[in-house]
Amino acid sequence: MAEIVNVAVDAMGGDNAPGEVVKGAAEAVNADKRVKVFLVGREPVIKEELKKYNYDVERLEVIHADEVIETGEPPVMAIRKKKESSLVKCMYLVKDGSCDALVSAGSTGAVLVGGQIIVGRIKGVERPPLAPVVPNINGVSLLLDCGANVDARPSQLLQFAKMGSVYMESVIGVKNPRVGLVNIGVEEEKGNALTKETYPLLHNCPEINFVGNIEARDVPMGAADVLVCEAFVGNVILKMMEGVSDALIRKIKAGMMSSFKSRIGALLVKPALKQTLKDFSTEEYGGAPLLGLNGLVVKTHGSSKSVEIKNSILQCIAFKEQKINQKIKEQVVLED
Amino acid sequence: MAEIVNVAVDAMGGDNAPGEVVKGAAEAVNADKRVKVFLVGREPVIKEELKKYNYDVERLEVIHADEVIETGEPPVMAIRKKKESSLVKCMYLVKDGSCDALVSAGSTGAVLVGGQIIVGRIKGVERPPLAPVVPNINGVSLLLDCGANVDARPSQLLQFAKMGSVYMESVIGVKNPRVGLVNIGVEEEKGNALTKETYPLLHNCPEINFVGNIEARDVPMGAADVLVCEAFVGNVILKMMEGVSDALIRKIKAGMMSSFKSRIGALLVKPALKQTLKDFSTEEYGGAPLLGLNGLVVKTHGSSKSVEIKNSILQCIAFKEQKINQKIKEQVVLED
Repeated sequence: MAEIVNVAVDAMGGDNAPGEVVKGAAEAVNADKRVKVFLVGREPVIKEELKKYNYDVERLEVIHADEVIETGEPPVMAIRKKKESSLVKCMYLVKDGSCDALVSAGSTGAVLVGGQIIVGRIKGVERPPLAPVVPNINGVSLLLDCGANVDARPSQLLQFAKMGSVYMESVIGVKNPRVGLVNIGVEEEKGNALTKETYPLLHNCPEINFVGNIEARDVPMGAADVLVCEAFVGNVILKMMEGVSDALIRKIKAGMMSSFKSRIGALLVKPALKQTLKDFSTEEYGGAPLLGLNGLVVKTHGSSKSVEIKNSILQCIAFKEQKINQKIKEQVVLED
Repeated sequence: MAEIVNVAVDAMGGDNAPGEVVKGAAEAVNADKRVKVFLVGREPVIKEELKKYNYDVERLEVIHADEVIETGEPPVMAIRKKKESSLVKCMYLVKDGSCDALVSAGSTGAVLVGGQIIVGRIKGVERPPLAPVVPNINGVSLLLDCGANVDARPSQLLQFAKMGSVYMESVIGVKNPRVGLVNIGVEEEKGNALTKETYPLLHNCPEINFVGNIEARDVPMGAADVLVCEAFVGNVILKMMEGVSDALIRKIKAGMMSSFKSRIGALLVKPALKQTLKDFSTEEYGGAPLLGLNGLVVKTHGSSKSVEIKNSILQCIAFKEQKINQKIKEQVVLED
């Protein structure tokens, strides 16, 4: 029988906590027997929520935590001061080996800081990138870094490319993933100081399948499976993806409501459109891993519903079974 | 009577040259009596194209140029070597004062380099930003810099903010335009070294209406009228706008064709959708000005059709009549 994967879940993090988080945890436990969840947060409210669901009590434990880290709090301060918070307790469960992974929909800054300060980096990893999947017309790409590590160095981008390739191949299941360097032109000599120095490092790295520079326009077209960039650019790409989609869909909906004829048409296309928009969302892939840590830290969207919480928990199974951190140690760090 | 605005047009630049460029020039001349166009390029082909249109021959001249700068050519080399190219000849027409402005759909790199080397910067302007308008759900914003000037300094971003405000108010007609600094969070302390240093400069500048940091997600929502960033980020924003729109529209069209019911619906919503997508395009605003030069250089999209060429030519009228360069000299450079 497969080994149990122990996942700590920050029951108090996110816009829909604890309701949707607790629901997602129960769903994950019911979906896969290989997972055990530790719901960390205010025990009375979590237990109240849990009454709504049937689940295997052997694989869902509640661990009490008094404090909650709010989204607006300065991350470093919050992690240092709030030792009794649900997030910090989750971090320590991973650090001391009680859990293999943690999932939080809470403050991105606090997750990034806590991951580095408490869980800690794999020796040799310069920076742990936050690596969400982003939709494209054919599937998804892994975008890294989207974290708080701005002003990155070329050697760090090389590590992002290697770690991203390992994750994309072993967890998402894309064989020999194509790595692209996000740039402002496809020619080798294009870009800023960072991309110009990074290009030859990626080009000369035999362990990755580097396909060259990728312009932002080709990101949604799926021009690469692993998109390498520093965190400021990664953040802009991720948020433009959301913002342009939202704006366009809002426009299209308003446009369809503009005449009687188009309102009838809208009723007829609605089911097909709904499916299309679902295809262009990433909720089924779970959250964004913070790669290169001694354990797995997964950040899910602040607005996560139970389905994203569930999938974020389930993705921890592949992460452990595929021995991602072992691969990072062997393929990324030792090679440097 | 208003003064004539003389515009040099690179008849050989762009994917649809010379056909659409010549057509757009004729349309511009017919649309506004204040404009005179100098079509620069291979005289025989231009004259052949011109036979298709009726226009005031007093306000449309052809100037022969033997050479053409291709899109793939290294810009600096092309500008230096191809003295007889249509683009370089346009640049000299502006430099020597024969023309007020030039419009080109040709190589962006060559336009940027030629603008700086031949037309030249207004004294005191550190860098001339390329400033396209980008659509948002309520109208348009001006995005600068989208040029080749990567790795910018804070003082340059301050100048971009001032020049962008002048242009947005005087040419696009937005009173007291809201200036936003593109960043990875809205709090003042967020960002990379560049944005952290730029924030206080913008905050303490009394001549602009600074509204703070803007996340990329809020760009398509119209959170600011003037979006300030360095060129790498500007390029990513511009190209994500195009790429996400294209990908989503392709998805939606395919979704609508997926069942008989939705195909019927698609027929009914088509006219409304077409209008919506037109609202979300920027062709009616003309091309992107390269601000801060001794004259006006307008770069239009490489795939420009006649409507964009026409509007790019017509926008030169407001630029001259509103004395943009005079305002830049008085309000941007002298204040520094």
